[in-house]
Amino acid sequence: MAIDQKIIDELEAVVGKDRISTSPAVLYTYGFDSSIYHHNPDVVVQPISTEEVSEIMKIAYKYEIPVTPRGAGTGLCGAAVPIMGGIVVAMQKMNKIKKISVNDNWVDVEAGVVYNDLNAELAKYGFFFPPSPGSAEACQVGGMVATNASGMRAVKYGATRDFVLGLTFVKANGDIVRAGTRTIKDASGYQLARFMVASEGTLGIITEITFKITTKPKKSASCLCAFDSLVDAGECIAAIIAKPLIPASCELMDRVSISAVNKARGNPLPDVEALIIVEVDGETDEVIERDLKIVEEVAKSQKSVSVTPSFDPKEIAKWTDARKSVLASLSVLKPGYVSVSLADDMGVPVSQVPKAAKFFQETAEKYNVTIATYGHASDGNLHTKMVIDPNRADEWERGFKAVDEIFAKCVELGGTVTGEHGVGISKALNFQQERATEIETIRAIKQAFDPKNILNPGKADQWRGSPLRDLRYPCKEYM
Amino acid sequence: MAIDQKIIDELEAVVGKDRISTSPAVLYTYGFDSSIYHHNPDVVVQPISTEEVSEIMKIAYKYEIPVTPRGAGTGLCGAAVPIMGGIVVAMQKMNKIKKISVNDNWVDVEAGVVYNDLNAELAKYGFFFPPSPGSAEACQVGGMVATNASGMRAVKYGATRDFVLGLTFVKANGDIVRAGTRTIKDASGYQLARFMVASEGTLGIITEITFKITTKPKKSASCLCAFDSLVDAGECIAAIIAKPLIPASCELMDRVSISAVNKARGNPLPDVEALIIVEVDGETDEVIERDLKIVEEVAKSQKSVSVTPSFDPKEIAKWTDARKSVLASLSVLKPGYVSVSLADDMGVPVSQVPKAAKFFQETAEKYNVTIATYGHASDGNLHTKMVIDPNRADEWERGFKAVDEIFAKCVELGGTVTGEHGVGISKALNFQQERATEIETIRAIKQAFDPKNILNPGKADQWRGSPLRDLRYPCKEYM
Repeated sequence: MAIDQKIIDELEAVVGKDRISTSPAVLYTYGFDSSIYHHNPDVVVQPISTEEVSEIMKIAYKYEIPVTPRGAGTGLCGAAVPIMGGIVVAMQKMNKIKKISVNDNWVDVEAGVVYNDLNAELAKYGFFFPPSPGSAEACQVGGMVATNASGMRAVKYGATRDFVLGLTFVKANGDIVRAGTRTIKDASGYQLARFMVASEGTLGIITEITFKITTKPKKSASCLCAFDSLVDAGECIAAIIAKPLIPASCELMDRVSISAVNKARGNPLPDVEALIIVEVDGETDEVIERDLKIVEEVAKSQKSVSVTPSFDPKEIAKWTDARKSVLASLSVLKPGYVSVSLADDMGVPVSQVPKAAKFFQETAEKYNVTIATYGHASDGNLHTKMVIDPNRADEWERGFKAVDEIFAKCVELGGTVTGEHGVGISKALNFQQERATEIETIRAIKQAFDPKNILNPGKADQWRGSPLRDLRYPCKEYM
Repeated sequence: MAIDQKIIDELEAVVGKDRISTSPAVLYTYGFDSSIYHHNPDVVVQPISTEEVSEIMKIAYKYEIPVTPRGAGTGLCGAAVPIMGGIVVAMQKMNKIKKISVNDNWVDVEAGVVYNDLNAELAKYGFFFPPSPGSAEACQVGGMVATNASGMRAVKYGATRDFVLGLTFVKANGDIVRAGTRTIKDASGYQLARFMVASEGTLGIITEITFKITTKPKKSASCLCAFDSLVDAGECIAAIIAKPLIPASCELMDRVSISAVNKARGNPLPDVEALIIVEVDGETDEVIERDLKIVEEVAKSQKSVSVTPSFDPKEIAKWTDARKSVLASLSVLKPGYVSVSLADDMGVPVSQVPKAAKFFQETAEKYNVTIATYGHASDGNLHTKMVIDPNRADEWERGFKAVDEIFAKCVELGGTVTGEHGVGISKALNFQQERATEIETIRAIKQAFDPKNILNPGKADQWRGSPLRDLRYPCKEYM
């Protein structure tokens, strides 16, 4: 149903006039996330409590209006783009850290708390919430739950799903559900709290979360290993894991990524074909020295062309900053070109990283597109970005052909189309292929939670159209 | 519908005559798990493949026959008791470890693999699957998934839910679903594989699982600390966690538990009011020495009457065996009495362990029942067992009154009625109270998965009758 003034008035009665907007500039802004898509909502509201979210949903339910919940908009797949219009529920004003219980190893937060803000507070007590997404400075914990966000440290510490003890969510009809517990263990029936993880706003709006927290290791060190080929780098990672040694993080960068960063940031990295940055952590110097030694030995036995261990926080920060700047650096690689997230976070078994990396390079050549490969390779989570001219339909079409082949290859290698960013719009069709036997059950569950299909409609498994619809870029064919 | 010979014949056509039984002795045996309940099934089948389970479910679906999947029957709440009769699907012949991928940190197993068998195999590669339930020697991994089983090591390593990457299950109508991945990360839509965790056979029959595995720490040591009161012991545990120090395990035993073990096993433990056994683990001697020192210091500052650190595997094994024998020892505490699982695995925030323990003792006095308190106290997971004369209705009634108060208190303290054993029959009513806002959603999900309600009917949230129905004990009023 279209949103008329009567509905706006009802929403305004819930949040007050300062936290609702229909101004064109605001609607335009909230039509983006960090994906390739854009679609304006009809209205944006900023609730400050679970009760307000409940009242908003009651209105949406009554009039059958699409509702898209939104964190910081750092998602890369379009999950927060209101592709059907309607109401955007922006969570940034629900940003309170409500209680830290160090004695019980949990923290109660509102969904709009920024990840880094939470860890800054937890650090005061010697604790942390490990998932560490690339968007740590901006992303909100509610969005992290809604996408099962993770990042560099998942190989050792797990993803967001491993830290959700309980949460509060608002259902399509406005009912408020408190699911899960504030205890470390919970065998009480269906794990509803954890089932909300990765549901991308399609089952309910997550408003508060109880996360398990863990003690922060006291020591860490890193090793930068350079290689003559991406495949050699991938094989080194597989050999480290098979040792077995589970690093705190292990980041891979290919030539395209390295060149982009060196160009944008004044050459912080060696000029090589591929490199990995391996971080080890632990409680004592002895542990990290021993583990770093293992990394060095494996790298030397695996065709590395240089191996640089470091205990110097400044040097390590230089490497980490370089790695974190890949995404931004790629966008200034060629004038008029932008880096876009198409196949952006595939997961493969770590032993298959070399094969996958080789296939990405071959596919880039085949379709004449520039592909950067990098990512959290020790858990098999690989990022690729394409650098394309966004005005040209043929670039998009070649890009999407490459993407389809890349996704299919990753699934063939025992992997998944999305390891940490979610399905959203851009991966919906590939996801439906990958999870063929799950889809019927997924749809029955969606129907059970949201019979009127108002919660983030058209996302995840529901998407049927072209993944090129509603592009944010000035490509006439696909806007 | 009643099971007639025609249905038996159809089932026999699936599994063959050697893996189906309707003999009275077999039906009687499969009417038990390790709970207080008993109810005969009409037929027992032992499939050897997912396809056979699928064919069995198609028959059950066609004739609307209740189906209860069963692992080793070590569950303590009645989840595997076929309370509505029908078919028991016993999984013990699906016991293959299909593939161990140490390079990719996962293992593929059939649901009927025994936990200890799996770890014996993983140990050859330096890996383990940590949850360590008390029934480790017998319990099957499928049952562990179905109940989110855990044990001593959950405080540091997590419960079964934290290790499920993917699984195969058979739906009510016989459809086979492969859910999840074999990658460490997975953000691909609804986390269906993990949602099957703790579903107690009510959503589908789990036939195969891909578990994440992790490297086994090389060193461990333990410390036995004795106290003059259970509350003092609880306060010491809370102080260790708050340090912060996350032990590998931390087991609590009260006077009743200690006395039972000392009587049954020839005094392996000091004769005190309460004790805790704290295990620390890590990669080097330095780490475990440092952590054990912290435990000693905290214990000494927390009213301990004796503190015994040990690096001696024999001494530690003596303590561990003593702790593991509590359940069996309680059953020989008094002639004619048995230990029963009523309130058997509550979870509370660890800071609330002293209050909870004090309340258990007061409640035992109030209702004149013998209650043993022990368990995995560093994650707030407490076991109580009642030692009662099972012939007397008044003992059961006083016991259940005590249980209701204990459950209510644990929830009031921020906890849950079940931390690791599940809901089953015995906790159903209390679970429904604890999770009032979840129930409507849980029922809608159950309806979506199992519209004919044939999968383990009457369990978890569905139970409405008295929890004293169908007792296994010779108490005339409740048989």
